[in-house]
Amino acid sequence: MKAFSFTFTHPKGSLHARLGTIKTPHGVIETPAFVPVGTQATVKSLTPEELSTLGVQLFFVNTYHTYLRPGLDVIKKCGGLHAFMGWHGPIITDSGGFQVFSLGRSDLVKITDDGVRFRSHWDGSEHFFTPEKSIEIQHALGADLIVAFDECAAYPTTHAYAKAAMERTHRWAERSFAANVKWQMSNAKLKKPYQAMYGVVQGSVYEDLRKESAKIISGMDFDGIAIGGVSVGENKHEMRKVLEWVTPLLPDNKPRHLLGVGEIDDVFTLIEHGMDTFDCVQPTRLARMGKVYIRGSSLDHLVDITKKEFAQDATPIERGCACYACTHFSRGYLHHLFRVRELLGYRLATIHNIHFVNSLVSDIRHAIETGTFLAMKKRWLYNK
Amino acid sequence: MKAFSFTFTHPKGSLHARLGTIKTPHGVIETPAFVPVGTQATVKSLTPEELSTLGVQLFFVNTYHTYLRPGLDVIKKCGGLHAFMGWHGPIITDSGGFQVFSLGRSDLVKITDDGVRFRSHWDGSEHFFTPEKSIEIQHALGADLIVAFDECAAYPTTHAYAKAAMERTHRWAERSFAANVKWQMSNAKLKKPYQAMYGVVQGSVYEDLRKESAKIISGMDFDGIAIGGVSVGENKHEMRKVLEWVTPLLPDNKPRHLLGVGEIDDVFTLIEHGMDTFDCVQPTRLARMGKVYIRGSSLDHLVDITKKEFAQDATPIERGCACYACTHFSRGYLHHLFRVRELLGYRLATIHNIHFVNSLVSDIRHAIETGTFLAMKKRWLYNK
Repeated sequence: MKAFSFTFTHPKGSLHARLGTIKTPHGVIETPAFVPVGTQATVKSLTPEELSTLGVQLFFVNTYHTYLRPGLDVIKKCGGLHAFMGWHGPIITDSGGFQVFSLGRSDLVKITDDGVRFRSHWDGSEHFFTPEKSIEIQHALGADLIVAFDECAAYPTTHAYAKAAMERTHRWAERSFAANVKWQMSNAKLKKPYQAMYGVVQGSVYEDLRKESAKIISGMDFDGIAIGGVSVGENKHEMRKVLEWVTPLLPDNKPRHLLGVGEIDDVFTLIEHGMDTFDCVQPTRLARMGKVYIRGSSLDHLVDITKKEFAQDATPIERGCACYACTHFSRGYLHHLFRVRELLGYRLATIHNIHFVNSLVSDIRHAIETGTFLAMKKRWLYNK
Repeated sequence: MKAFSFTFTHPKGSLHARLGTIKTPHGVIETPAFVPVGTQATVKSLTPEELSTLGVQLFFVNTYHTYLRPGLDVIKKCGGLHAFMGWHGPIITDSGGFQVFSLGRSDLVKITDDGVRFRSHWDGSEHFFTPEKSIEIQHALGADLIVAFDECAAYPTTHAYAKAAMERTHRWAERSFAANVKWQMSNAKLKKPYQAMYGVVQGSVYEDLRKESAKIISGMDFDGIAIGGVSVGENKHEMRKVLEWVTPLLPDNKPRHLLGVGEIDDVFTLIEHGMDTFDCVQPTRLARMGKVYIRGSSLDHLVDITKKEFAQDATPIERGCACYACTHFSRGYLHHLFRVRELLGYRLATIHNIHFVNSLVSDIRHAIETGTFLAMKKRWLYNK
């Protein structure tokens, strides 16, 4: 039984922005949707209940990290990732490739057509990821949405290397797909939930490669399409170009995920170009550095709460914000918690930032529905 | 208006253990009660709502720490400690003395009869605490229960030094009391809540001094009596002796607080000797080290969840425990969080440990009421 579907509407007046519903065995995702990242099987400092309360619909977990720690034996023994983390909504895992390639061009990583040999950043132990291995791991983890194994080339890179990496990504996409067919049959036999698979478009910043990759990945029978490699160093102009090249070539009827991007202006750019979901560590990582979102406070809507000016400020982090942090505590208290490095500070800032981005995206969904998305974007980004 | 009262009953068959009710302007404390410590105006990693849910009735805050960071200006500007922390139940602050004396015999601290000159552990800035200053700070903080300024002598110490420190403590108790009278008049005029004051019994491990101190502090018009100096190095036998000397000399009708003790066997000892409240950092500090309470697991009922044997353990931290951590997560997940140093781990372990101690003390209250306290103690400590 294929408990996965995607439906969407495309209201007028919002360029390519669209409203959708992704149905998964663990629940429904209203799109566009921001997806917070729980690198090590936890969104740092928060409980699953808090995430639900904050309107989180989909939980992103890194395959590379969970494969190394706690490892598959533990996850299997504890009944899969949903049971292990106590999160019973939809989960997406990545292919593991991005983190492996992030280990750099050092001797930690060796890429062949067969796969990638690498050493653990924890203990130096040697591992070998292939498309088949990535899919096997992702089936053991049991996420609702999984991602084909891809090579995310470093940035910047030559056209020649980007082309080679892209072609390898396409061959690996075929192998990932084939491996997935086998595991889906096993899932069906064991009455395990269906796991929808996304293929990944690569091609670095080169128009011909991105377009070729978009066509080839679109031509395969994936459940969804992910765009990779736009978070490794490209600037915002390059990201916009990639979206302009790629998205017109993608099938309408499949959900689209952008891997690893999510500053406030990016959110508008992605959605405007028809992306449905996007994960990003920024809102939560910035929170742990004391950078909290306050609309209109600066070009990126971020304020550093550790600055002295907030020490005696008895007002909420953001006036009118309905989040738990803003309705219970002052800027002065948050400032204090950060200055003395108290754990509650990281937690309250994380709550506020996730609430902020989720509220923004919820408002964007409403704006798309009512044909006011472009006006909203102008107000937010250009204060017009 | 003196919105403070203490009533108690003394059921049969429980030695000196008693059941009481302390009424404060911010709520009622059913005693005996364990008091978690929020050193820097937060019980590390938890929100006030979580503390309430865990059955916490009284929140202990260190005067020394909050005086240095964030400082009184901030606390005043933010409306006092209750508003600043978002905790609207009863609060107790200490005199600040204990932390100052903990800075050691180094050149950081200089004691005279007038007060104590010390340097901040944060930035080396110089400060001077006197009884009057301690009470002024505690009034600015606005706790429901405050503590007279005392000298907590180091351990071990000579009889001569212990006697000198005790006599200074008594002179400082007089001065603290006098300062408090003045501030209470100011509070009454400004319609601020009444702050009940505890005097402190000192005297190190010397019977004659402890008895003298108990008599002198009992002879003053404090609202409650605290016993200090039993957490600085004395062993459990010495603590028991101190309690045996001191408590028979204390007035029945005043609540008694023991400063800084709270291992599981101590809980029984304290309550058996008629203590009503006691604060301790142990349950929360141990939690952040991965040491969680499991009844009967060892002599001290503690287990190190970071040990390898828990890596694949899909059972709750403690079977049958009703806390949030145990009802939602496995030992395997908690083990993982600690191994990869995730903030949620510290939080879940803290939740479990506070729940454990509060449940124990709640059960003890019931046992005292039904005359089964001694039987309960035997089951817990000697497995009989």
